[in-house]
Amino acid sequence: MEQSVAKPIRCRAAVSKAPGQPLEMEEVEVAPPRAHEVRVRIICASLCHTDVTFWRMKDFPAMYPSILGHEAVGVVESVGEHVQEVAVGDTVVPVFLPQCGECDDCRSARSNICSVLTYRPGLMPRDGTTRFSFADTGEPVHTFLCVSSFAEYTVVDVGHVVKLAVGSAPALAPEKACLLSCGVATGVGAAWKVAAVEAGSTVAVFGLGTVGLAVAQGAKMRGAKRIIGVDLNPDKLDIAKRLGITDFVNPNETGGKKTVSEVITEMTGGGADYCFECVGSTSLMAEAFKSSRKGWGKTVILGTDAGAAPVSISSSDIKRGRSVTGALLGGIKPKDDIPVLAHKYLDKELELDEFITHQVGFHDINRAFDLLQQGRCLRCIIWMDNNGGAKDTVARA
Amino acid sequence: MEQSVAKPIRCRAAVSKAPGQPLEMEEVEVAPPRAHEVRVRIICASLCHTDVTFWRMKDFPAMYPSILGHEAVGVVESVGEHVQEVAVGDTVVPVFLPQCGECDDCRSARSNICSVLTYRPGLMPRDGTTRFSFADTGEPVHTFLCVSSFAEYTVVDVGHVVKLAVGSAPALAPEKACLLSCGVATGVGAAWKVAAVEAGSTVAVFGLGTVGLAVAQGAKMRGAKRIIGVDLNPDKLDIAKRLGITDFVNPNETGGKKTVSEVITEMTGGGADYCFECVGSTSLMAEAFKSSRKGWGKTVILGTDAGAAPVSISSSDIKRGRSVTGALLGGIKPKDDIPVLAHKYLDKELELDEFITHQVGFHDINRAFDLLQQGRCLRCIIWMDNNGGAKDTVARA
Ligand SMILES: [Zn+2]
Ligand SMILES: [Zn+2]
Ligand SMILES: [Zn+2]
Ligand SMILES: [Zn+2]
Repeated sequence: MEQSVAKPIRCRAAVSKAPGQPLEMEEVEVAPPRAHEVRVRIICASLCHTDVTFWRMKDFPAMYPSILGHEAVGVVESVGEHVQEVAVGDTVVPVFLPQCGECDDCRSARSNICSVLTYRPGLMPRDGTTRFSFADTGEPVHTFLCVSSFAEYTVVDVGHVVKLAVGSAPALAPEKACLLSCGVATGVGAAWKVAAVEAGSTVAVFGLGTVGLAVAQGAKMRGAKRIIGVDLNPDKLDIAKRLGITDFVNPNETGGKKTVSEVITEMTGGGADYCFECVGSTSLMAEAFKSSRKGWGKTVILGTDAGAAPVSISSSDIKRGRSVTGALLGGIKPKDDIPVLAHKYLDKELELDEFITHQVGFHDINRAFDLLQQGRCLRCIIWMDNNGGAKDTVARA
Repeated sequence: MEQSVAKPIRCRAAVSKAPGQPLEMEEVEVAPPRAHEVRVRIICASLCHTDVTFWRMKDFPAMYPSILGHEAVGVVESVGEHVQEVAVGDTVVPVFLPQCGECDDCRSARSNICSVLTYRPGLMPRDGTTRFSFADTGEPVHTFLCVSSFAEYTVVDVGHVVKLAVGSAPALAPEKACLLSCGVATGVGAAWKVAAVEAGSTVAVFGLGTVGLAVAQGAKMRGAKRIIGVDLNPDKLDIAKRLGITDFVNPNETGGKKTVSEVITEMTGGGADYCFECVGSTSLMAEAFKSSRKGWGKTVILGTDAGAAPVSISSSDIKRGRSVTGALLGGIKPKDDIPVLAHKYLDKELELDEFITHQVGFHDINRAFDLLQQGRCLRCIIWMDNNGGAKDTVARA
């Protein structure tokens, strides 16, 4: 009967109070988990571009005050009624994308968009309230993407929690598990689940941030023979190569006469088998589509255009056997597929270490925002026990 | 050595001399087939919307004078050098889409867009000349879509010819075979090959002309449980039902408050599994996309926008697991799949008879253009021996 004895917890949280302003470290009260909810002690979190996008956003769906963060790993501290799937002490990855397991979508192998646990900006999915409040005033603080991992404790619906069960294999280090909750899973999943890249394929990746480089890793894992990376920043070349990119195209260095799609079409003798847009620019989406091969070329949209501009594609090009698709979280079903990705890392099929370019303690969380915006960071791990940068001394879950 | 004895043939052809003007019956000379070519005596042809589109078109790729027509069935009269696949006397269906059988695309199960026999408007694909000239002046007459079936004889590249081999089954009547060369094959193929509609699926078809109703037939053949037809013309309801449409949505009768996609989303509890655009209107393409279900909804583009306007799709909708694709000839490989469709008709899995709404003799070919433009006609068969309307007296191939 743990749920009946759970009490509010007071702890630290990094609160976003106004668009683009540094997060403020506050004492918050985290209410006990309600039915179908789990309270989790966060071990570490990481910063994703979506956090930065919302942090800057002035209007709905951004809400203030709120606790951002949606990549993390933690330990179950207490569970609400009806929670059978996880127990106190389990290591879990909270995920923004739910999997109720029972709706038409969750039961179909084709969809990862649950129909039951629908997204309510700033609120818990099931009852539309929040478990956070300021400790001093009692004023509610919004949750974010059903996760809110920039806090020492958070409450997550059990539909948004993945239990890391890696069988008899050694447990995954927390900072590696953390990566699997959004960006890296999105890229790897897109190559694996959405495109189902075949051995010997040619792939083009537009935008070499974490998602794009994870696409490269996923494509490499699937046996792609050529993985062309497109990015404006030549400094990314080294890490890109380590993560699987075989050819690099810089749009600023195509001789000024050719578009990127013309260059790729020439390089590949007709276009890439699979093109992935990982930036969120509609003009780049169109360029990715034009880089795809007639007959079977598939373009996968992973970026989100901030202005919600539509993607524009020629119907005559699409009628020559091309297709465009997209996915959230790379088409993976969190509870089914994140444990598989963890296995693939432990089996050395999947590289995760290179994605961790920086580590900070929780008190330095605003530095993670600076680093990501400077473009030199893939993932910055934020350690709740403040041992950022002293990675080797951190206890493993 | 038949190819060495083949001589020019003088015969009748319906020549398109100026945009939108009635075709003129002329005596033309049809040169002997060159290497890899086949000269075919046309038994009957049918009129497709693409013929009408090109007939109206003022500029390139329309060319004048030319012999339109690209749906037909005929008998091989003579063959050029290196033609092994068909022999004099074989019944064949000429097709606008080639299949060389040897390129990467032809050898892949995923593509039906041959890389070798590329389309050259108005000309033969291999040597870029034409086999037609006016008998009196010798002036060349352009070919059309590599077929030019509005003539008593035509020359077609062997890559554009399908031999109708239906084994021990009774031969297909010519007017049925004729239908399989473009419009009907496109619709059936789209449901079968491009969408691979599953039993129990929900399908929405935008535009109930021949292609759209063939999609309905194809979806029915694949076991779709619900096939929603969208058309402005309520007169199509009866024939649509006979061809598999289970529900009808008239965009003029949605109460003025709802869009077609809103109506379909409501009817289906979230959107159709498969949506097919068969008109060639970019706004309808967008509406079809919006009618597709999150998670796995697939939109197939079959129409061609005359103004080449791009299709516009929301990246946030596509990221919820939707996809858009398209195809020429419904994704079928002519030489492999048209004989399969013929079998399916003979096995009564596929309905073709209802598509033949009109029949005329060759001398009445301009009436076929009138009928198709009036919107009451699906397919008008044009009989080269002039026995239009006297279907039962026509000898079968
Ligand atoms: Zn669900
Ligand atoms: Zn993210
Ligand atoms: Zn070919
Ligand atoms: Zn046609």
